[in-house]
Amino acid sequence: MEFLVRSENRLPPTTPPEERERLRAAERERAMELRAQGVLKRLWRVPGRNATIGLYEADDATQLHDALMSLPMAPWLDITVEPLATHPQERGTS
Amino acid sequence: MEFLVRSENRLPPTTPPEERERLRAAERERAMELRAQGVLKRLWRVPGRNATIGLYEADDATQLHDALMSLPMAPWLDITVEPLATHPQERGTS
Amino acid sequence: MEFLVRSENRLPPTTPPEERERLRAAERERAMELRAQGVLKRLWRVPGRNATIGLYEADDATQLHDALMSLPMAPWLDITVEPLATHPQERGTS
Amino acid sequence: MEFLVRSENRLPPTTPPEERERLRAAERERAMELRAQGVLKRLWRVPGRNATIGLYEADDATQLHDALMSLPMAPWLDITVEPLATHPQERGTS
Amino acid sequence: MEFLVRSENRLPPTTPPEERERLRAAERERAMELRAQGVLKRLWRVPGRNATIGLYEADDATQLHDALMSLPMAPWLDITVEPLATHPQERGTS
Amino acid sequence: MEFLVRSENRLPPTTPPEERERLRAAERERAMELRAQGVLKRLWRVPGRNATIGLYEADDATQLHDALMSLPMAPWLDITVEPLATHPQERGTS
Amino acid sequence: MEFLVRSENRLPPTTPPEERERLRAAERERAMELRAQGVLKRLWRVPGRNATIGLYEADDATQLHDALMSLPMAPWLDITVEPLATHPQERGTS
Amino acid sequence: MEFLVRSENRLPPTTPPEERERLRAAERERAMELRAQGVLKRLWRVPGRNATIGLYEADDATQLHDALMSLPMAPWLDITVEPLATHPQERGTS
Amino acid sequence: MEFLVRSENRLPPTTPPEERERLRAAERERAMELRAQGVLKRLWRVPGRNATIGLYEADDATQLHDALMSLPMAPWLDITVEPLATHPQERGTS
Amino acid sequence: MEFLVRSENRLPPTTPPEERERLRAAERERAMELRAQGVLKRLWRVPGRNATIGLYEADDATQLHDALMSLPMAPWLDITVEPLATHPQERGTS
Repeated sequence: MEFLVRSENRLPPTTPPEERERLRAAERERAMELRAQGVLKRLWRVPGRNATIGLYEADDATQLHDALMSLPMAPWLDITVEPLATHPQERGTS
Repeated sequence: MEFLVRSENRLPPTTPPEERERLRAAERERAMELRAQGVLKRLWRVPGRNATIGLYEADDATQLHDALMSLPMAPWLDITVEPLATHPQERGTS
Repeated sequence: MEFLVRSENRLPPTTPPEERERLRAAERERAMELRAQGVLKRLWRVPGRNATIGLYEADDATQLHDALMSLPMAPWLDITVEPLATHPQERGTS
Repeated sequence: MEFLVRSENRLPPTTPPEERERLRAAERERAMELRAQGVLKRLWRVPGRNATIGLYEADDATQLHDALMSLPMAPWLDITVEPLATHPQERGTS
Repeated sequence: MEFLVRSENRLPPTTPPEERERLRAAERERAMELRAQGVLKRLWRVPGRNATIGLYEADDATQLHDALMSLPMAPWLDITVEPLATHPQERGTS
Repeated sequence: MEFLVRSENRLPPTTPPEERERLRAAERERAMELRAQGVLKRLWRVPGRNATIGLYEADDATQLHDALMSLPMAPWLDITVEPLATHPQERGTS
Repeated sequence: MEFLVRSENRLPPTTPPEERERLRAAERERAMELRAQGVLKRLWRVPGRNATIGLYEADDATQLHDALMSLPMAPWLDITVEPLATHPQERGTS
Repeated sequence: MEFLVRSENRLPPTTPPEERERLRAAERERAMELRAQGVLKRLWRVPGRNATIGLYEADDATQLHDALMSLPMAPWLDITVEPLATHPQERGTS
Repeated sequence: MEFLVRSENRLPPTTPPEERERLRAAERERAMELRAQGVLKRLWRVPGRNATIGLYEADDATQLHDALMSLPMAPWLDITVEPLATHPQERGTS
Repeated sequence: MEFLVRSENRLPPTTPPEERERLRAAERERAMELRAQGVLKRLWRVPGRNATIGLYEADDATQLHDALMSLPMAPWLDITVEPLATHPQERGTS
């Protein structure tokens, strides 16, 4: 099942640069693992913001939740999840 | 996977009573079928409104969508769907 | 009477891990007591968030309030409560 | 249990005057019955609007819902209900 | 003139318990004085929140403002005030 | 007591011009009466909209409500009223 | 450049079935053309609603606008467009 | 003084094509006049919507209002106006 | 040109009393100067809040901005400005 | 492609004056560079706020994002970006 995941990064601007970079590197690494597992399919940057919109796929919201909570930045992420239904045009039948 | 489904019924007040009753009866009948299939698990009335909050279960949002669109009142329903993840307290393991 | 309770946990990310775990354990314990009393009936995780949606039952909003305030995390919880009316389909008569 | 009930009257301005007056008279009559039963305790007009705020008392949201739906204007009323908990200052004990 | 006063208490969770209790006691005392003066007529707790809804009466918004600012918790209260007009049903004439 | 009154005019664009002009003339006439009584003190147009912001004075919200409902356009006006408290700078004393 | 396009279909429920089906067929046909041109890349149904979320690609917002206005349902579509920036993880370089 | 003017065109989809085209032509003509007078400086289309964002210049909000109301589509336009202050970087002095 | 200026004062409750009083006194003094210049015409308190609504007059938004930024409390003020157009009833002509 | 960029500056009021001035100077310098590159075309101040509205031009949202993130104040800027489509009146053809 696919989900649209909107995520605002609330890491305070006063966070020490090294800590920020450490978290960023760990985040990128974890994201690559989720891509490899087919959980994270596309990721876009919201222009002008420290925020992303992502296309995720998971068996259900519980698996998605665990994946999102496994992100190192999770404690500072303000996330909203939208469930996506397959459109008839993409069900092959229509 | 469970979903919380909020539904406002926009059937105009000027709808002829027989038409309203026909739709209501058909709606109740279809709802019973969905209950029998385990898709509709609980349904509450929002006090003071022609609106409901329902607990649904479906394989994914696509199956849920088809179930909701199969309701006779669907053309007049203003629906928002929230995905629900299983809470650790209810995962049996925690 | 049943209530839908939406709760966002605002415990700051900078809270020391031991303190967070202590609160979590106490929260789980108290939640189990509320389940035993039939006050907390179902609890879901909002995917991607440190937030829950719960189905509660209490005599009235006052009893519900006391139950919610008895949760160890209460000072950091941003809670909204929605009253639920029994739907005709579940009143046994229809 | 007490509830705060906000109600906007969406009866169209083009409603024939006699029909409007008939509904108003029936509404006042029904309101008096609800007052007599102790369900409707206080009613205020929102200044400048065809809208009211009411203090209601009912066993639960289901009973409140039935009372509100018994109002002749119900089909045109856009109602939101807020549950009220007794404040410690008014629990007699404090 | 009557007013509906919604008040969210933003006193931080980290406030030392004695300070919190001192403020609470002073708040209750002041509230009793306002009740005695007929300014505070009813007070409800918003279930699940450190927030209240109150029915106040004052000559005008200026007198109401002074009464609300006289509350010890005022610096931490996020208050919205709604003016209430007397409903024809309660004007004695209708 | 002073009030800030925001009013959107929802008279449909398809209203016959003569009817619109009749209502406008009657509205202007009634407004002049309210000015003469000191109820309507200032009136501004919201640029680009068929809407106004007005400064009104009345004994209380009930008197204000009656004044606003006496406007010929009242059935098509979507009005929100804000109570205004006298600022210390304008209380003469400060 | 990629865009996220949210579209609510406001075609009234009272639209004659043949007209609705004619529009739907024409819409599907036009959508296939846009897919062939690489403008429409992915399309999802918002569960429970006559609404879609689409991933589009166009040189700029002007080209996107023309593509969206070329849809037969365009007069009844309530569309909001969000610009998407390429995320560092998908820029090949990171 | 410059203003940012956001305008949603609510002309119903069921408007006869000739009437729509007549209004459009008249709108374009009036817009050219406003450009010639330096009142309308820039105009953009909001992608996917029958809506525009415009940069206007007028002595004050009253002159702007009259200019906007002179547009043939004015009765169907839902307009919001934002005042713009000159930024220090564009005041020549900074 | 007239403007309606809504201003919420976010000065933290924990600000030392002397600092608060110093700022207040300086604010009152500056406000009197703006009144003398005809820039600040009326000022109301929003009941229950550390917030004001003011009627200002300035040549344009740039002059208004400079006046508002000259207020000692400016760094803690959350201000929204609404442009006001003269209503036909107050243009002397109508 | 043109974009409308709304930016609220959340730099805390308690920021030391020198730090604030250093950032401001660097911001002005960077803005001039963006103007020279044709990326920043117009910039307005939102009256009464530490906020701007800007007209930007970039190949796409990715290039715009990089430009905005290159601003020294970026970590404290709360930015929303709106894509702008060319209006027929400004396409030269109409």
